[in-house]
Amino acid sequence: MNRLLIDALHCRNLGRAPVWLMRQAGRYMPEYRALRKKHSFLEMCHNPELIAEVTKLPITAFGMDAAILFSDILVIPEAFGIGLHFEDGAGPIIDRPLNSPADIQALPKVDMRHSLNYVTEGIRLLIPELKVPLLGFCGAPFTLASYMIEGKSNHNLHKTKQWMLRDPESFHQLLTLLSDHAITYLTMQIEAGVQAVQVFDSWANVLTHHQFREFSLAYMQKIVEKIKPKVPVILFCRGSSTFAPEMVKATPSCISVDWNVDIGSLRSVVPSSIAIQGNLDPDFLYAPIPVLKKEVTRLLNAMNGDPGYIFNLGHGITPETPTEAVQALVNCVKEHP
Amino acid sequence: MNRLLIDALHCRNLGRAPVWLMRQAGRYMPEYRALRKKHSFLEMCHNPELIAEVTKLPITAFGMDAAILFSDILVIPEAFGIGLHFEDGAGPIIDRPLNSPADIQALPKVDMRHSLNYVTEGIRLLIPELKVPLLGFCGAPFTLASYMIEGKSNHNLHKTKQWMLRDPESFHQLLTLLSDHAITYLTMQIEAGVQAVQVFDSWANVLTHHQFREFSLAYMQKIVEKIKPKVPVILFCRGSSTFAPEMVKATPSCISVDWNVDIGSLRSVVPSSIAIQGNLDPDFLYAPIPVLKKEVTRLLNAMNGDPGYIFNLGHGITPETPTEAVQALVNCVKEHP
Repeated sequence: MNRLLIDALHCRNLGRAPVWLMRQAGRYMPEYRALRKKHSFLEMCHNPELIAEVTKLPITAFGMDAAILFSDILVIPEAFGIGLHFEDGAGPIIDRPLNSPADIQALPKVDMRHSLNYVTEGIRLLIPELKVPLLGFCGAPFTLASYMIEGKSNHNLHKTKQWMLRDPESFHQLLTLLSDHAITYLTMQIEAGVQAVQVFDSWANVLTHHQFREFSLAYMQKIVEKIKPKVPVILFCRGSSTFAPEMVKATPSCISVDWNVDIGSLRSVVPSSIAIQGNLDPDFLYAPIPVLKKEVTRLLNAMNGDPGYIFNLGHGITPETPTEAVQALVNCVKEHP
Repeated sequence: MNRLLIDALHCRNLGRAPVWLMRQAGRYMPEYRALRKKHSFLEMCHNPELIAEVTKLPITAFGMDAAILFSDILVIPEAFGIGLHFEDGAGPIIDRPLNSPADIQALPKVDMRHSLNYVTEGIRLLIPELKVPLLGFCGAPFTLASYMIEGKSNHNLHKTKQWMLRDPESFHQLLTLLSDHAITYLTMQIEAGVQAVQVFDSWANVLTHHQFREFSLAYMQKIVEKIKPKVPVILFCRGSSTFAPEMVKATPSCISVDWNVDIGSLRSVVPSSIAIQGNLDPDFLYAPIPVLKKEVTRLLNAMNGDPGYIFNLGHGITPETPTEAVQALVNCVKEHP
């Protein structure tokens, strides 16, 4: 078993930096696109055999040091029966988004262990077949709440923020509900075999510093408190370049940062007991290979053998990324002296 | 003459904090919308009488402590004859965006003093009529280059970033050209009477730390070097919450910050010789008035009578903002003990 990721998450990796890429099992891979011709995205998310098959694709093709479960953060909202579907080009759509506190009260009691059993079945199929650690994940409560309120991807989250400003109490109720489900869901994943988890707060960058603390970080901290005694927990936020000093206070195992920040200077605000993951701009994967390799090398040199460093992108890999660039990136990290 | 803004820009304001709002002369005002029914946006930008009339609208209506010239950052690209127009809902469109280094070489030699004379005429009309300072402005070279390459508003700037990564040399040529024109344009504005200027780098948030230094900040620094001996220079970036410690190195008069950062803690990275402007999230203008006032008061208390603090938003005011909220904001700043 490849131990680089787990050792780095415990800030005790004395070997080379481990590498994996957010959304590494995705549309940029021809093998993935071939499967998508036969199945809808949600069919793939719901099918344990396909979960296992897709999760393994990038490991087989490129040799990353960790696999991340093929799934979507919206499986928790979907389990409430609010009508999730995916439209090509438009991303996720929720047919019945939340419009009022009464809509929160009206959400059905959901047993995630039953509703999301297909995920744990996928994990159980995967574990015996992997020679690298398997990462589980979930959406952060703030990002899940935003999707449930907006009903679709939306850059400014105007409806969500107005709800937060006008009725913070019911917004907190929703965040509490989602935190509880996220903890259950991650616990299920851990029981099925994942060796670490990542929490994705993809929309936290719309928040002020104080809102981030109250509506995003406080709930990620609840997740860290329950889950970190079991397996390492990585926190990812868009906006982490600014919020990293606050994120430290939730004492996750690792902070995954976007690409605005100079990663080498992060160690001055992130204590050596917390690992750092990141932060290549995914646009470098479209650059000429020598330009890509120079930037990868720059990041590795900046972290200079840090025992708590994990190489990753600053955000998810994008659909048109050339596979040659992904291979060059992985090789470059593995061959770094 | 109201001196609060100029004193604050010199970090020597012993009175209350001055207040103005980015995009304060805009669509949220009924008087503005009435004019837009009679004239296109570009007609209004090109007409000195309308420039003067629109610039004064918010001062008359709400009593801000500074006026900002009614114009658009894209008047410089427009002067190159690349076909600028504005489509309702879609924002600016450039008909002939730059696609190759040859397109940069083919840009006509433009005399901005001639092409943008209508702006200076507008300023000359305004100056005798204002009892508050008039701010001039221009787009930062990186943001102007991005618009000229993308041809429209675009959240990820993929084409621009690929150009930057594949051919940094020609990208630097474009930035140099735009810096020279920006300096000429700001000098014209100062000669016509503006008492301070702001440089807007609205798209800098897509950049890595190192790209920001090389492709954005280096050119803003050139502008600061030429213009600050004449009048105070404010630098605004989206991404300034992360980039502020770097922006300090360009020694502007003032750094205008987005709303991710806790403004009270900024003084630890911004020396007392540089003013700080910001950083109310414009979404608070849609909140109930007591919630808005509480946040305005929180920001004022955080800056605690700092002699180099200017109250502003973290980004431009948005079109559906209620005018009652704008009035409440201005009053709240003015009445703060």
